[in-house]
Amino acid sequence: MSQSNSVINQLINALRCLPGVGPKSAQRMAFHLLERNRAGARNLAEKLSLAMDKVGHCSRCRNFSEVETCEICRSERRNRSLLCIVESPADVQALDQAGGYGGLYFVLMGRLSPLDGIGPQQIGLDKLAQRLDEGEVKELILATNATVEGEATAHFVAEMARQRNIKTTRIAQGIPLGGELEYIDGGTLAQALTGRRDY
Amino acid sequence: MSQSNSVINQLINALRCLPGVGPKSAQRMAFHLLERNRAGARNLAEKLSLAMDKVGHCSRCRNFSEVETCEICRSERRNRSLLCIVESPADVQALDQAGGYGGLYFVLMGRLSPLDGIGPQQIGLDKLAQRLDEGEVKELILATNATVEGEATAHFVAEMARQRNIKTTRIAQGIPLGGELEYIDGGTLAQALTGRRDY
Repeated sequence: MSQSNSVINQLINALRCLPGVGPKSAQRMAFHLLERNRAGARNLAEKLSLAMDKVGHCSRCRNFSEVETCEICRSERRNRSLLCIVESPADVQALDQAGGYGGLYFVLMGRLSPLDGIGPQQIGLDKLAQRLDEGEVKELILATNATVEGEATAHFVAEMARQRNIKTTRIAQGIPLGGELEYIDGGTLAQALTGRRDY
Repeated sequence: MSQSNSVINQLINALRCLPGVGPKSAQRMAFHLLERNRAGARNLAEKLSLAMDKVGHCSRCRNFSEVETCEICRSERRNRSLLCIVESPADVQALDQAGGYGGLYFVLMGRLSPLDGIGPQQIGLDKLAQRLDEGEVKELILATNATVEGEATAHFVAEMARQRNIKTTRIAQGIPLGGELEYIDGGTLAQALTGRRDY
């Protein structure tokens, strides 16, 4: 076990590919699996291989998919004139679970970040342009994160839509549900005031 | 992706066998691997299978080992008359990395906990008794955790050693290195006072 290339150490190092897992947690995970859950570990190994082999991207929305066109894009029950732009597959999951939206998605799989070499091409905006040109989309909903890069990306996409005369909206920014003004940061409060609506 | 038995969801569920990983972190891990580190994920799958197949327990000390008798138990440079009793493989790692100990270990792989059905047999005390009867061990160092179960286990093992007239010691309990009295709990302080030594 003190050999640095022992099987256990190889497992500990391999576990560090997981986000947020450092050397201590990796060791804890390895020992836990060996001591208490070998079946779970074997299942995890199998599912990891399977997912890496099978999961690609949907040709329409760029979300993860096992098939050419994902379930959401194929659905007959969704409003195909609404297209919601999000940064990641986790955002699709969050919005769909929240309910209240029945349109389609387009997943950028990232955000514009020129300093990191991530331009319009890398986040699939050429594909989005094609899609907008098809004419099916009547409203584009910008649901990128409320971060600097997210805003820049939203701005860029909005410009693409304006050139094609497509209505564009941005999801509302303000105080979250259950939020107490006392504990909310100044930036959010300022935005909530600017974006106030008739009551 | 919204299908509950999709490959991605299978992967997310499989990741929950890791300790401290709930549904949200499992999803984050799955998406991270798919988006950014497929090679790491494939390597992890391989190392998991390998470790589950190869790693068993050392026949002498019960620690994890790929071979019949582990490297520590085989070592010629260790003092074979010292035997340190610990609860888990992580404890062996911690003590050995700390330095200052050159003896052997015996790993209980648990602690006495009658309510959970963990008795002397389950933590290998029959094997320890045999080992003590061999006569090689001259001092038994109790290094179980300073918890209620750890103390109970230490007490039980000490009794086994006393019956065989083997010297038994317990690792010191008191304020940790760099500890400031102001922030240390009362129980530890009381123990540090009771265990005070000539200066």
